[in-house]
Amino acid sequence: MTGPYVPPLVDHHCHGVARSGLSAEAFESFLTESDAPAAPGTTFFDTQLGFAVRRWCPPLLGLEPHCPPDEYLRRRHELGPAEATRRLLGAAGIADYLVDTGLTGDLTTPAELAAASGAACHEIVRLEPLAERAADTAGDVPSFLDGLATAVTDAAAGAVGFKSVVGYRHGLDFAPARPEPAEVRSAAGRWLAGRAPGERLADPVLLRHLLWSAADTGLPLQLHTGFGDPDLRLHRCDPLLLTDFVKAVRPTGCTLVLLHGYPYHRNAGYLAAVFPHVYADVGLSLSHTGARAEAVLAETAELTPFGKLLFSTDAYGLPELYVVGAELFRRSLTRLLTGWVEEGAWPARDAERVAAMIAAGNARRVYGTPGESFA
Amino acid sequence: MTGPYVPPLVDHHCHGVARSGLSAEAFESFLTESDAPAAPGTTFFDTQLGFAVRRWCPPLLGLEPHCPPDEYLRRRHELGPAEATRRLLGAAGIADYLVDTGLTGDLTTPAELAAASGAACHEIVRLEPLAERAADTAGDVPSFLDGLATAVTDAAAGAVGFKSVVGYRHGLDFAPARPEPAEVRSAAGRWLAGRAPGERLADPVLLRHLLWSAADTGLPLQLHTGFGDPDLRLHRCDPLLLTDFVKAVRPTGCTLVLLHGYPYHRNAGYLAAVFPHVYADVGLSLSHTGARAEAVLAETAELTPFGKLLFSTDAYGLPELYVVGAELFRRSLTRLLTGWVEEGAWPARDAERVAAMIAAGNARRVYGTPGESFA
Amino acid sequence: MTGPYVPPLVDHHCHGVARSGLSAEAFESFLTESDAPAAPGTTFFDTQLGFAVRRWCPPLLGLEPHCPPDEYLRRRHELGPAEATRRLLGAAGIADYLVDTGLTGDLTTPAELAAASGAACHEIVRLEPLAERAADTAGDVPSFLDGLATAVTDAAAGAVGFKSVVGYRHGLDFAPARPEPAEVRSAAGRWLAGRAPGERLADPVLLRHLLWSAADTGLPLQLHTGFGDPDLRLHRCDPLLLTDFVKAVRPTGCTLVLLHGYPYHRNAGYLAAVFPHVYADVGLSLSHTGARAEAVLAETAELTPFGKLLFSTDAYGLPELYVVGAELFRRSLTRLLTGWVEEGAWPARDAERVAAMIAAGNARRVYGTPGESFA
Repeated sequence: MTGPYVPPLVDHHCHGVARSGLSAEAFESFLTESDAPAAPGTTFFDTQLGFAVRRWCPPLLGLEPHCPPDEYLRRRHELGPAEATRRLLGAAGIADYLVDTGLTGDLTTPAELAAASGAACHEIVRLEPLAERAADTAGDVPSFLDGLATAVTDAAAGAVGFKSVVGYRHGLDFAPARPEPAEVRSAAGRWLAGRAPGERLADPVLLRHLLWSAADTGLPLQLHTGFGDPDLRLHRCDPLLLTDFVKAVRPTGCTLVLLHGYPYHRNAGYLAAVFPHVYADVGLSLSHTGARAEAVLAETAELTPFGKLLFSTDAYGLPELYVVGAELFRRSLTRLLTGWVEEGAWPARDAERVAAMIAAGNARRVYGTPGESFA
Repeated sequence: MTGPYVPPLVDHHCHGVARSGLSAEAFESFLTESDAPAAPGTTFFDTQLGFAVRRWCPPLLGLEPHCPPDEYLRRRHELGPAEATRRLLGAAGIADYLVDTGLTGDLTTPAELAAASGAACHEIVRLEPLAERAADTAGDVPSFLDGLATAVTDAAAGAVGFKSVVGYRHGLDFAPARPEPAEVRSAAGRWLAGRAPGERLADPVLLRHLLWSAADTGLPLQLHTGFGDPDLRLHRCDPLLLTDFVKAVRPTGCTLVLLHGYPYHRNAGYLAAVFPHVYADVGLSLSHTGARAEAVLAETAELTPFGKLLFSTDAYGLPELYVVGAELFRRSLTRLLTGWVEEGAWPARDAERVAAMIAAGNARRVYGTPGESFA
Repeated sequence: MTGPYVPPLVDHHCHGVARSGLSAEAFESFLTESDAPAAPGTTFFDTQLGFAVRRWCPPLLGLEPHCPPDEYLRRRHELGPAEATRRLLGAAGIADYLVDTGLTGDLTTPAELAAASGAACHEIVRLEPLAERAADTAGDVPSFLDGLATAVTDAAAGAVGFKSVVGYRHGLDFAPARPEPAEVRSAAGRWLAGRAPGERLADPVLLRHLLWSAADTGLPLQLHTGFGDPDLRLHRCDPLLLTDFVKAVRPTGCTLVLLHGYPYHRNAGYLAAVFPHVYADVGLSLSHTGARAEAVLAETAELTPFGKLLFSTDAYGLPELYVVGAELFRRSLTRLLTGWVEEGAWPARDAERVAAMIAAGNARRVYGTPGESFA
């Protein structure tokens, strides 16, 4: 099977890599969206993601594919985190990273990620922390709202897009309309009055205010949809719950990028098909389904127009997750398109053209990269 | 691979063909359910449906499969709409069309479609326009309700079934019970009083009144479910939302045919499996998923009893959509059944029997065709 | 294709077999979840389950695979129910049955099933009948609640798990919290006052009281999720509706086993992935999808950790359903894992290890069997 050429990838949604070495427990905790240790008698290595890591990563550290987890962790420890990261990222075949810098923890910055990988890095600014940081320093409602407005404007100047986790903080079933200024002021007053320092934003009016503030900047806005960690209620992260917001925000000209989507990835594809400003992503959906990634990508590619589908890894913490996300994507796309070409459903030249669009071209067009870059 | 013989098809749900020539923009607009031009940098030809049209149609106009869209449109223009339609419909392999005549626009009537295709045509009457036309001429509530009752009875005499788009106009989460006469009168009064001429019906009581009026005629009732254009909210078109209506209407003996269903086609299959009067359709779900149509058909055929599954194209405007709907269905069905026969899961003689049922026999039994026909 | 070895199965969720001979109509009625005869012109043999029975069972009674249903029923009648059951169960390859004894009808007990099959049998106690039996004999609220508490404790002493059909009786969208004692007493008073003898429990407070009572025993708790007979509303049986209950019950240490799940099996897999005390089952999802069982199992195995996935047949009435459930599972699992091994995604030794876990090991660990047994 020689499939279509897939160019170096643009990973339009990922996070930083853990800076320091990880214990076996810490390593395993990055293989799951769970917030707890594996159930008695089980291990997170016994998942599609765990098997995918064991398939693709050991050879990059000089071991046999599918070697036992212990052997892999021993070798990784031996090399040290910097060298392991360098080897793994160097082999991922990713040319550009768009890094959501909104996660806490000892993670690499975009500049550090660029240095470790040799790739170009761009920033995606997460909205909710902008409000939380503004609240940490604001004395009153006007200074909070001013500070937040400035933070959004400043972020827009340096970043290539925004990201919202309103799906986690509230669910995607929020009121679709732009909140009135008085409503925002009143919500801000309530939130600031009751807020413990560092407390997360969960107020639905302020969450919506963030979305509309981002939409006004004209930058693309990424929205978490579908599965994630147990902080969210999955049935409230069905992207279809965004339908009325999608319609309401359309006149601003803001581009919406629906992340992950699984198991509602077909629903995300529908929105991308019928609304010109909506795009769909593969994200977590491929990494966590491993040997099934081709099937999940195929479902995503049913309704999503080929100019609307984007690649990402959503990798976080482990450099292994970039490798796995990229390998699963390349392999799934190649197998899928090759199959369609072989059965006569797709012409070979269009398969190659579409592969390049999904791998990189669509993201470059949507985010306008290369732009502000740390490379 | 020689699969089961698939007989000429009964397309139990389609619309008319555009009578006049189409600009490139107009042609492209029929390749999507979107109500807007394609996003900047994209085209609706870059979709599964677009690729399917390019695969199956150029050879019928004397071109290579997958020739560029421009070349295809040039050739189509050269032949003129009548000749292109004649060639395309003549090759679709469809023996009977059941035509929903409720769409506006410069579309062929069933009689014209029969003339252009050489197939038998039967009419499916859309319910909502009956109410809208009755309202256009009625002076008061009693004359509106009388006019509507007469329109339903008259339609039942000439048509082989009814269709409702309550999914678009309200969502499938309507109150399941038959509305009381007083409730209907009062809703009619409110609607007539506030209605601009030509305004669409969206009143939930009157929409339900239409459904129950149709159920009383004993004709099969088609219901739009699943995806469509952005007029609908997809999560309110899950056929499962009809469960209580399905139960309530069961004593009337009315047959319900759930159209499309995607991405809820498995849910439609469940309803067809547990309720004797419910049937499921493939419709849009195959045309718009193109190279993935076999997978979608396979999912539909999980729970749907084989005597309950119906073929349709939901084609509208472009004769290409009849060709693509029919080719994708025949190919998907043949591949699926052949695979099951080859692995020993299905016996060959039953595969052939089931193919004939889904292709034509089930629809003939459900709609009682041949009956009133324009052929 | 020589796949991984699959050991004798633990069927962690099934029911009894019909003790006496069955008419053709009665036999056919066990092939569907419908509560009515097949629609005119159709038969329940024309379903994926019907074809699967015709594939796997005739050879066990000395006939050709896929022989006509009449021939099969004639042969079955000739052998008599006891001999047919003996032959069929003897060939199912199931080592342990965990039998939900909560169904009424002339069905074998676990001891009788053990005798007929030669397998070890364990009991799963259905919760709702415990309340109904307690209500049948209780004079007042305190004696009802005492009787129920004793029934739960007694059941826990002899059974390996509990099962709830709250999905049928109410839907999974029940209030997640443990009901307060006063709330339970008041609901019991209302229910006992209005209850006709033998009436089913549908009161949401008492249904929740049963769930929490079971959770307190420390035994695994099976929950019906996904499709079933038309007593349920499928969209209210999405396992995700349990999310808040899953979180609320977590501190008790109770293990939750989500049965079936289809068409929400991916959602069940998500819950199993992120909550340590949640497990997912295949159940009905494989038997009723027949030739598609491999695809459905594959979807279930996307997010479900391999140590969290359990096999069951949910067989009921017909010994054929044990055979079909087991054959479809073994064949689907073998094909799936073999494919992954052949393409290099999974190592062969782990495929064999995981096959043994899903087939039997996970269930033995979760239920602590062998334990109280009727073998």
